[in-house]
Amino acid sequence: MDIHGIQEELKEFAEAREWGRFHSPKNLAIALAVEASELLEHFQWLTDDESRTLAGRPEDHAAVVEELADVMIYLIQLAARLNVNLEQAVADKMRKNAEKYPIDLARGNAVKYNRRAIEE
Amino acid sequence: MDIHGIQEELKEFAEAREWGRFHSPKNLAIALAVEASELLEHFQWLTDDESRTLAGRPEDHAAVVEELADVMIYLIQLAARLNVNLEQAVADKMRKNAEKYPIDLARGNAVKYNRRAIEE
Amino acid sequence: MDIHGIQEELKEFAEAREWGRFHSPKNLAIALAVEASELLEHFQWLTDDESRTLAGRPEDHAAVVEELADVMIYLIQLAARLNVNLEQAVADKMRKNAEKYPIDLARGNAVKYNRRAIEE
Amino acid sequence: MDIHGIQEELKEFAEAREWGRFHSPKNLAIALAVEASELLEHFQWLTDDESRTLAGRPEDHAAVVEELADVMIYLIQLAARLNVNLEQAVADKMRKNAEKYPIDLARGNAVKYNRRAIEE
Repeated sequence: MDIHGIQEELKEFAEAREWGRFHSPKNLAIALAVEASELLEHFQWLTDDESRTLAGRPEDHAAVVEELADVMIYLIQLAARLNVNLEQAVADKMRKNAEKYPIDLARGNAVKYNRRAIEE
Repeated sequence: MDIHGIQEELKEFAEAREWGRFHSPKNLAIALAVEASELLEHFQWLTDDESRTLAGRPEDHAAVVEELADVMIYLIQLAARLNVNLEQAVADKMRKNAEKYPIDLARGNAVKYNRRAIEE
Repeated sequence: MDIHGIQEELKEFAEAREWGRFHSPKNLAIALAVEASELLEHFQWLTDDESRTLAGRPEDHAAVVEELADVMIYLIQLAARLNVNLEQAVADKMRKNAEKYPIDLARGNAVKYNRRAIEE
Repeated sequence: MDIHGIQEELKEFAEAREWGRFHSPKNLAIALAVEASELLEHFQWLTDDESRTLAGRPEDHAAVVEELADVMIYLIQLAARLNVNLEQAVADKMRKNAEKYPIDLARGNAVKYNRRAIEE
């Protein structure tokens, strides 16, 4: 995925519409959280099992695909505004997670997982 | 960015820890929204201008980079679970946005922007 | 519950700390969403059944009680800032919901519930 | 505000529609976070000052009032499900906040406020 290319395109898109002044990092972070919640809304009354089969229901799937795109679009715009190399950030975080959740301790342990996540 | 490669790595990571049963699309959507809010938390009491200069404050920047990575990691895990090609989804959505917000109507118009965003 | 009295107390609390300039409706709305996500975080890896028995686990319960309070505190501060009578707003919305979800159509119907919720 | 009375009404409302099985604490926590984000959405592209004058714009105000009610409705349903006395929880948290943010240290200090909020 050409993150940098998409960031350039999104920048031109916003500039052509003079939206730069709305796109402060603060506002983009709000927009990202709002879109992530709209995505979550599609799952809110589903059981876990229903959520696992959602991809097989074309109408629901299409709606969710669009929400995923919205989240991604704000995420990479925010990264651009903050001069963050997303690829590097993800690689660094995955290395950190590997240290934080050693396989032996983390295996199948929801409670521990939860506790650790909350302590983060 | 090699989204597919990262998705494979994340899948192995979760499988080694037997976290598959926690990682339903529903739970991943919750985790994504929770991480997006943790990212937002860093901006909540900042003015717009302070958010624009955050990238120049190393400690704040490092914290935000990590939150961006968390959001990205859950986003691409969720996309994998739902068989969504993120790159394609983003391209499709950008084309749709170009039709939805024609340059002439959208230029510098916060109110219209807001209204349209809410109607989505 | 003496909402008005609590609003007065919260106002004095914020004024004594000179936090008024941080407490714009926008910032309070962000804080409310952030706190609601912190509350959600406690449930994110639980099954539905585990969430139904959480009240019986004192440590988890205490943590969740505090998050509920945080959400409530920001909600009533925001209502005060926007001159909203929360009690009236809730009564009006409950009447509206009774019309929107007639018992015959809504009974036990998750899919319809979901669809209608999303269309809101 | 008669929280207990409203909780009884909401319980009857959900029971009449056989929604009890959807209303696990986990699902109510999701719904609460989703509604808090819908509320936030109304503020996302506003400046701080525009958010301070929103109460004077009848159409915007009405929309926001309804979102506040939605948040409150899920909050008190969740509290009922978890056997939480909201009034007591708020009183306890306000006492705790008074100890956590002594007036001398907190006065007008956004950075400290932010740091402390994040550490919570």
